[in-house]
Amino acid sequence: ATQISRSVRGEKTLTLDTLNPQVKAVEYAVRGPIVIKAGEIERYLEEGGTKPFSEVIKANIGDAHAMGQKPITFLRQVVALCTFPELMDSPSFPEDAKRRARRILQGCGGHSLGSYSASPGVECIRKDIAAYIEQRDEGVPSDWENIYLTTGASDGIMTILRLLVSGKDSSRTGVMIPIPQYPLYSAAISEMDAVQVNYYLDEDNCWALDINELHRSYQAAKQHCQPRVICIINPGNPTGQVQSKKCIEEVLHFAYEENLFVMSDEVYQDNVYAPDCQFHSFKKVLYEMGPEYFNSVELVSFHSTSKGYTGECGFRGGYMEVINMDPEVKAQLVKLLSVRLCPPLAGQAAMDVIVNPPQPEEHTFKQFHQEKSSVLGALAEKAKLTEKILNAVPGIKCNPVQGAMYAFPRIFIPPKAVEEAKALGMQPDMLYCLRLLEETGICVVPGSGFGQKDGTYHFRMTILPSIEKLKVLLGKVRDFHIGFLKEYSGLE
Amino acid sequence: ATQISRSVRGEKTLTLDTLNPQVKAVEYAVRGPIVIKAGEIERYLEEGGTKPFSEVIKANIGDAHAMGQKPITFLRQVVALCTFPELMDSPSFPEDAKRRARRILQGCGGHSLGSYSASPGVECIRKDIAAYIEQRDEGVPSDWENIYLTTGASDGIMTILRLLVSGKDSSRTGVMIPIPQYPLYSAAISEMDAVQVNYYLDEDNCWALDINELHRSYQAAKQHCQPRVICIINPGNPTGQVQSKKCIEEVLHFAYEENLFVMSDEVYQDNVYAPDCQFHSFKKVLYEMGPEYFNSVELVSFHSTSKGYTGECGFRGGYMEVINMDPEVKAQLVKLLSVRLCPPLAGQAAMDVIVNPPQPEEHTFKQFHQEKSSVLGALAEKAKLTEKILNAVPGIKCNPVQGAMYAFPRIFIPPKAVEEAKALGMQPDMLYCLRLLEETGICVVPGSGFGQKDGTYHFRMTILPSIEKLKVLLGKVRDFHIGFLKEYSGLE
Ligand SMILES: Cc1ncc(COP(=O)(O)O)c(C=O)c1O
Ligand SMILES: Cc1ncc(COP(=O)(O)O)c(C=O)c1O
Repeated sequence: ATQISRSVRGEKTLTLDTLNPQVKAVEYAVRGPIVIKAGEIERYLEEGGTKPFSEVIKANIGDAHAMGQKPITFLRQVVALCTFPELMDSPSFPEDAKRRARRILQGCGGHSLGSYSASPGVECIRKDIAAYIEQRDEGVPSDWENIYLTTGASDGIMTILRLLVSGKDSSRTGVMIPIPQYPLYSAAISEMDAVQVNYYLDEDNCWALDINELHRSYQAAKQHCQPRVICIINPGNPTGQVQSKKCIEEVLHFAYEENLFVMSDEVYQDNVYAPDCQFHSFKKVLYEMGPEYFNSVELVSFHSTSKGYTGECGFRGGYMEVINMDPEVKAQLVKLLSVRLCPPLAGQAAMDVIVNPPQPEEHTFKQFHQEKSSVLGALAEKAKLTEKILNAVPGIKCNPVQGAMYAFPRIFIPPKAVEEAKALGMQPDMLYCLRLLEETGICVVPGSGFGQKDGTYHFRMTILPSIEKLKVLLGKVRDFHIGFLKEYSGLE
Repeated sequence: ATQISRSVRGEKTLTLDTLNPQVKAVEYAVRGPIVIKAGEIERYLEEGGTKPFSEVIKANIGDAHAMGQKPITFLRQVVALCTFPELMDSPSFPEDAKRRARRILQGCGGHSLGSYSASPGVECIRKDIAAYIEQRDEGVPSDWENIYLTTGASDGIMTILRLLVSGKDSSRTGVMIPIPQYPLYSAAISEMDAVQVNYYLDEDNCWALDINELHRSYQAAKQHCQPRVICIINPGNPTGQVQSKKCIEEVLHFAYEENLFVMSDEVYQDNVYAPDCQFHSFKKVLYEMGPEYFNSVELVSFHSTSKGYTGECGFRGGYMEVINMDPEVKAQLVKLLSVRLCPPLAGQAAMDVIVNPPQPEEHTFKQFHQEKSSVLGALAEKAKLTEKILNAVPGIKCNPVQGAMYAFPRIFIPPKAVEEAKALGMQPDMLYCLRLLEETGICVVPGSGFGQKDGTYHFRMTILPSIEKLKVLLGKVRDFHIGFLKEYSGLE
């Protein structure tokens, strides 16, 4: 038994030196230094300070309601009815909504949203989700016992990674992720001290996933760790691409060959705008590859209430469907979920509405459909607009925003600016985004927060502001960029 | 670079053998085998099967609404208004509730419960919580920037432990917990692979915390790890004791002397029933010990919407107040919280109502107060009743339920039954609880799920069923216990 020196009395027990170093290693740009700065500027403006702009526009995070998107009426009606069942008597609530609320409450302990649900979620909601998936995937079977409600997709992703990565052996476990990626993945990998294995998306080919790059990445990783899992984000965040069926087949074939666990992040499955693109679920493609694949590849798919046309981020609703998971592992998963008791019930109810929306024969269908189309139609328009305006700026190149809710344009940063940033100990695109924020009030996230090929620079902006605001924003980005190029190319 | 053998194609990637062993090590009795069995029996009864009883009574989990407790009207009104703001125009909602809902929505992005909040929570809710704490603690200052909303207290507890325990050094980090304990703690410690350091509560002294036992436990642990943190649950789960001010002073002095980080789980702060007991917050006691203590001991206190008189478990609301945390560590905490984006907004709103309830001058006060008193009054009555009936059973000894919502009676298990259990590879109290379930339909949790002194046996039952049901339940427990003693003592 070893005796370990204890800290000196009066010194803090928990300092940056004694903090879990894996926490220290975590990076999360979407809410990083730029966003903290944006908050400071906002407060400064509120307190009467002056800047060359009157408001901060937060295009840093996929938070639709914060950017003015209105909730879907039907969804909120159902959740309000579940929250305050006295409203069942109110004639101003539609019968369709009451029916759904009653069904959800039937599934809750004591018929109350205030009871814990079973850890995997309310049974009838799991069944509705399975029915939705079957319909979405044109008949591919879905077993409700494979569905687990989550606290947002974030929670599901962390939980599955936790099964795969062990603290003791973490430095041997490779997790393949796309670059650029949604930084939850790199953050989780840091926190769990696993090995991040990058595969680069092909910017020159609309951010498509190239199977040769997967092989390269895998073979390189095998030299120093055991890649066990491949993460895919489709449609892509921050890159906005929608994967073709062929591409998905290749990934699944690769996963099959190399015995990789597949995590498919499909939270943007309803956010497809490009007319030549279509969402294909990994599960459906796997099914179509035949029983040899469908009965063996371990696949988890994630969905969320936060995106799509509802944008209900604050409800923290989501689910995962788990395919081909070893039954003993599934029991362990349930145990792990049990420790946190259950996902929030309002989020579960919101998820239920998304998978079980008004049907054409219901009175509420028309309004629901109008609201949904209006959100998705506006997003499609903004996707096109963003691409178009950005591509007209010299030194900016933006791939089409086929889906999701972000543009990830490549920006030319003059060597002098790169040098200046390096002298400041800063990523060049961080310098760029900080200047953009300071000069225009526009808050976007540097590409370095998502990962990018060395020597290339990007930023991520959401396409969520209203059309009018988006036009203003893009105009300001253009003017800023032109000024920035001039300043640093000495062309003033 | 080492080459690691990869798994064979067609074999599962994730099996019980390749699963994170720390997940495998987790135990969580509150939703363990007994509860799974109870679910099976419930389904069997529903499908027309017969048993010597007609329903399963789930006294295994502190889930008030599931046991029939009604929600507090005002709380649900506020959350419904936040969810569906069109209700602001409805004359059937009180102005007091509308005022609170408006205030909460003002603090939300886009004035919508559907936007992500800042990761530490909605600012005005943090401020309400700080004001509540100041009032509760009779003027001890509370800084709203020290308040972090959480997804239930569970989430806060896991997050703070994550800061303190690192995967690489985990086996050196000792976490002191009471025995018996709420099994979230042991589960988190297993998951993080830290060292569980037990200090035993004194059953012969109403489950009080004995400072000598703390010293013993600490000194013993120091031989093989570095104890860094002490967890306290007050009022206690499963043990129901309420700590005296003197006891809290001793714990804080000890933490000060040994430089331990203090985690004080105060989710039952509103659940105190014994007339000679009172809730003292760790923070207030620390303050009264003087600046030397108040300015140095690192303390986090947890609260939740799940307990108290609201019992809103499904909302997954909660907060923690962090005292004397190193500012750099606080920044790291915020970063860690950011990765999961934010706690559910409906839960944040529910928390707000709890800390900012109707005031005497408001119209809603009377009803609110009636509902609150009725819940707490019934709990106090059930606490007494449970203790009384159990203590009248030969071979059962139950400490007074001073607070929280559980009884944790000690049960005599005859040697023959102990032997039988051991032959079955089962804890004796597991055998007892399984038999109780099979024969009476009553679902309680074996003491072994919480930890107990070797050779002693207990079970935990909630006092949440209605008085009528609780009487039936306790009568059945009595009859079962007498029969069990007879059977195994050969006194038939
Ligand atoms: C690709 C992707 N996955 C997961 C999430 C997590 O979302 P939530 O936890 O709100 O469901 C996001 C959020 O932006 C995302 O973009
Ligand atoms: C002592 C204690 N702490 C924390 C919790 C977690 O509760 P929640 O996550 O619902 O807030 C519980 C739940 O029973 C508890 O008893």
